[in-house]
Amino acid sequence: MEGEILENSHPIHNVNFAKPRSFGETLRSDLVETLFPDDPFKDFRNAPPNKKFLKGVQYFVPIFEWLPKYNMKLFRYDVLAGITIASLAIPQGISYANLAKIPPIIGLYSSFVPPFIYAIFGSSKNLAVGTVATCSLIIGQTIGEKVSPTDNLKLYLQLVFTATFITGVLQTALGVLRLGFLVDFLSHSTITGFMGGTAVIISLQQLKGIFGISHFTTKTDVVSVLKTVFIRRHEWHWQSAVVGIIFLAFLHFTKYLKNKKPKLFWISAMAPLVTVIVGGLFAYFAHAEKYGIHVVGPLKRGINPSTIKDLNFDLNYVSAPIKAGVITAILALAEGIAIGRSFAITQNQQTDGNKEMIAFGLMNIVGSFTSCYLTTGPFSKTAVNYNAGCKTQMSNIVMAIIMMLTLLLLAPLFSYTPMVALSAIIMSAMFGLIEYDKYYHLYKVDKFDFCICMVAFLGVSFINMDTGLALSVGLGMIRTLLYTARPATCKLINLPNTNLYRDVEQYPVSTHSIPGILILQLGSPIFYTNSGYVRERILRWIRDEESNGDSQGDSVEHIILDLGGVTSIDMTGIEGFFELRRLLEAKAIKVAIVNPRIEVLEKMIKSKFIDNIGKEFVFLSIDDAIEAYKFRLDAPNKLT
Amino acid sequence: MEGEILENSHPIHNVNFAKPRSFGETLRSDLVETLFPDDPFKDFRNAPPNKKFLKGVQYFVPIFEWLPKYNMKLFRYDVLAGITIASLAIPQGISYANLAKIPPIIGLYSSFVPPFIYAIFGSSKNLAVGTVATCSLIIGQTIGEKVSPTDNLKLYLQLVFTATFITGVLQTALGVLRLGFLVDFLSHSTITGFMGGTAVIISLQQLKGIFGISHFTTKTDVVSVLKTVFIRRHEWHWQSAVVGIIFLAFLHFTKYLKNKKPKLFWISAMAPLVTVIVGGLFAYFAHAEKYGIHVVGPLKRGINPSTIKDLNFDLNYVSAPIKAGVITAILALAEGIAIGRSFAITQNQQTDGNKEMIAFGLMNIVGSFTSCYLTTGPFSKTAVNYNAGCKTQMSNIVMAIIMMLTLLLLAPLFSYTPMVALSAIIMSAMFGLIEYDKYYHLYKVDKFDFCICMVAFLGVSFINMDTGLALSVGLGMIRTLLYTARPATCKLINLPNTNLYRDVEQYPVSTHSIPGILILQLGSPIFYTNSGYVRERILRWIRDEESNGDSQGDSVEHIILDLGGVTSIDMTGIEGFFELRRLLEAKAIKVAIVNPRIEVLEKMIKSKFIDNIGKEFVFLSIDDAIEAYKFRLDAPNKLT
Repeated sequence: MEGEILENSHPIHNVNFAKPRSFGETLRSDLVETLFPDDPFKDFRNAPPNKKFLKGVQYFVPIFEWLPKYNMKLFRYDVLAGITIASLAIPQGISYANLAKIPPIIGLYSSFVPPFIYAIFGSSKNLAVGTVATCSLIIGQTIGEKVSPTDNLKLYLQLVFTATFITGVLQTALGVLRLGFLVDFLSHSTITGFMGGTAVIISLQQLKGIFGISHFTTKTDVVSVLKTVFIRRHEWHWQSAVVGIIFLAFLHFTKYLKNKKPKLFWISAMAPLVTVIVGGLFAYFAHAEKYGIHVVGPLKRGINPSTIKDLNFDLNYVSAPIKAGVITAILALAEGIAIGRSFAITQNQQTDGNKEMIAFGLMNIVGSFTSCYLTTGPFSKTAVNYNAGCKTQMSNIVMAIIMMLTLLLLAPLFSYTPMVALSAIIMSAMFGLIEYDKYYHLYKVDKFDFCICMVAFLGVSFINMDTGLALSVGLGMIRTLLYTARPATCKLINLPNTNLYRDVEQYPVSTHSIPGILILQLGSPIFYTNSGYVRERILRWIRDEESNGDSQGDSVEHIILDLGGVTSIDMTGIEGFFELRRLLEAKAIKVAIVNPRIEVLEKMIKSKFIDNIGKEFVFLSIDDAIEAYKFRLDAPNKLT
Repeated sequence: MEGEILENSHPIHNVNFAKPRSFGETLRSDLVETLFPDDPFKDFRNAPPNKKFLKGVQYFVPIFEWLPKYNMKLFRYDVLAGITIASLAIPQGISYANLAKIPPIIGLYSSFVPPFIYAIFGSSKNLAVGTVATCSLIIGQTIGEKVSPTDNLKLYLQLVFTATFITGVLQTALGVLRLGFLVDFLSHSTITGFMGGTAVIISLQQLKGIFGISHFTTKTDVVSVLKTVFIRRHEWHWQSAVVGIIFLAFLHFTKYLKNKKPKLFWISAMAPLVTVIVGGLFAYFAHAEKYGIHVVGPLKRGINPSTIKDLNFDLNYVSAPIKAGVITAILALAEGIAIGRSFAITQNQQTDGNKEMIAFGLMNIVGSFTSCYLTTGPFSKTAVNYNAGCKTQMSNIVMAIIMMLTLLLLAPLFSYTPMVALSAIIMSAMFGLIEYDKYYHLYKVDKFDFCICMVAFLGVSFINMDTGLALSVGLGMIRTLLYTARPATCKLINLPNTNLYRDVEQYPVSTHSIPGILILQLGSPIFYTNSGYVRERILRWIRDEESNGDSQGDSVEHIILDLGGVTSIDMTGIEGFFELRRLLEAKAIKVAIVNPRIEVLEKMIKSKFIDNIGKEFVFLSIDDAIEAYKFRLDAPNKLT
């Protein structure tokens, strides 16, 4: 009878109480949303069978897509870009190998095989493959804790290759299982802070090279490193420091030039190679070793030897490569994917993160078989590649060929490279990673994100890299869980002369609120983590409403809950609603719900909550709910 | 100029671009929401100073509130309830002590001191204090792993008291720091499954007592226990089994009676005591020991000795009491608070979870000083207390006094209690905890909650208690994180003849959608965990829209994002919006946002996103946004 009366006052549309979808349907749609949000197979799903196969191959091996369309015009651009990134790859390869405490030649090897693999399987047209400072340092640190590279270089190298192999397998697996979204759990704030902190400790470590100190601490934190530098004053070589400062000034000047005139980017891209060459000539002719300026030392001619048999899974040591492999896999992915994506955006292309992961993974697996250590798509190199006008993945192939020629013909020449030149190159690269303006921006916009960033920055600088990273990621997760534990609720008020209902705190208008009615908007999701809170908060809204004279009426008789923003609810959330209804019933307050979304309504139907409050108390809009309430006021005797 | 033109078409209300609140303000309001959602000091905040003090004392020590108003009429009810729960406390105390592998007298001690403390500090009028089977078993298991109670009972007991002390300190600390919401991270589904699993393993363990087996496994999982029972067939005593089955049948019958006629609840409440007394008489007169029916053994007269000096923080052992203390603290709180609350709801009262935690904590701290082990508010006992008509916390005091008299005068009589009677009492209590109907309900309503529940149930039954609990809690957190990683988005459609916009999947009406406009509603929150997904999903909506002919127009020109349901956003989320805008700009698609909530709008202003898209593309309602779009269509040359 109640429903009948209310129907008269009911407007054109009713809430859709359709039968809930089956479990299979919801599961399927949830899985699709979780694993295939970008609908990767869209291009060939509806193609005819023969095309489907071709499209499929092209999807998984992108070189089949771009190579057939390749022409000489594109090649001219790619050759130029390839030469430019190769000139960066040589000094970076040697420098970062130094951070990983491995022989410099391995740094050069690592810019030969992996770019080939990426050119076949990678889908980003701008990404340039290479080694990265952060991951090199992590590898050096983590494996160095287990085995000293000076005591047992063979074993140390085996573990480095094993770490690279583990990285590759993990990256491939994440891509194949389409778990790429896990990388999202590293927030930008964490990465920004982590990179900054790493840049600080890597720069400080270079003081060893700049001052030509022979004995150095193995710790990375700021305090230990600075202490060592000052304690070892007697080992300082002023000649080395002078050379270092000149190189640093030169590198810095070229960067300054690039910032002033972006067209001159190639000067700053070539600068590291110039530094290495000038440094080498100087060291050779001035017999720099005599003045305490160390050089890299012998480099053998020849391309990458096979290291398949060097992979070492000895249970006594394997924990170190696993740790290094897992951390660097995630970091390398985060850097590589973010960078590929951001360059793709500027060119209005799209990259598929999961597919990129597979490319990175294969590149590292093959790398670990061929004397390479971890590679990814570093930001600096990719930016240079882009600026140099690369058009396709061919620029990576050009770079690889140049590296091959270098390895076959020129490698021994680089043995005269002074360490101080490498230190200057690394330091100069690191300064750019400390992004003061970003920290300030975070501070301005979101204090919690700023904390997450600073925890990473300070944790890395003053404790160590894993701890800083773990603390920052943990803080990010706590934030997420805290958010779901405390979803925002607000009281809605009718904006005068409209049918809009908005947060009264945000739109403090003085309007005619209807006595006895309280309208609340609930936040999302309503889960076990917050179901108790939501209940308490609603009760508090009612108390607040009853205690101030705002609502003219002295007591709340009707509460309207706008669930339009609630996209998900679980069992405990539903139980919370049952409890709330019991509590309010005792106070003679009626509950109406407005606009439950599909997933929420399904669960409310299945759990019989809708039957409990009555279908006539579920409305499609706040206006409907108020209408029904007014109607009931006019005819109270007919209802209660 | 653009803003000017649009103003003409703009309706009565504008988006409120007020200056963002200061950091202090938002921090304060966030902290209040997180720690004081129930506004606990509401009653005495605005009272005059002298009243304020009194109210404050009454708030922290509730006995000052209810005792002055106490009268004989209430006392009559409480005495009856107190006697009833005392009759339950004696057999339960002895039985559960057995589960914790401690002497039975400690079970009796534990029903003497803690109820007194709770009566002073506790705020629930119905809660009856006592020991619980689950936590007793956890204590027995965890500490038993470190020290065997048969080899070194003194040390074992010291560690049990230490665990109780740690539990008490932790509970008090959580309450004082108002971190009670952490208990919410144990969902109902986890607790239901955990309790069921525990009931299974506890019941199986009682087969030892029922069959009178002397040598038993220390493992708890189903497989090990059943194996032991069958291997030790030669130790079975049929006399014991017969007695056990008779007791079980009797206890079960009284429960059946209670379910049929709820008024006869006192029969089932008294049944365990009757079992103990009849069992004791039988054992005494029939010399049951001869037939393999073991009895409890000597019980000394006298009340609780002090155990302050027994607290043992020896680093060799302290890990076990810490583990036991932390797990049982959380479980005991979850049970005690949930139960206090659910009974309060039936009587339209409110309990403050954080205050209750302090009461439980103090009760356990004092308990650990006075030979008691862990106590909380067990469900069964509280239900009996409520049914027996208790009116205030006085019923706990009555129970405590009866326990004192029992300890001083009658304790030795209970030494003849046969173990088989205790096993029957425990088993009968446990059967009620396996809630088949709840599992089925979960299965029907929410498959994910069902999984969480079953992981706890099966994990506890087949692995062990901590693992089962940890797996289930972990699964719950993964669900929460996954939810935030994949918030629901939907396409909105105008319901004919209204100004309502609803999910097209939920309300599949055939309506005149305006060509070129796509309206999407985004889920909440937009965090780093999902910012990439949200961007991809929006792009997919656009592709879907463009590929089906539904929208008449062939391409999307304008996308309207309804942010009304988005209650929170972080820095990565904002960056995602910037990226989205860049991507869409390249496709010549305009972005408009509708009804950003206060927190979201503040961050969008601070991060200059609003300046980036232009204030004239931020609207208060979808209608406004469409209106503005139409207006722009009419006057295209004036705008682009």
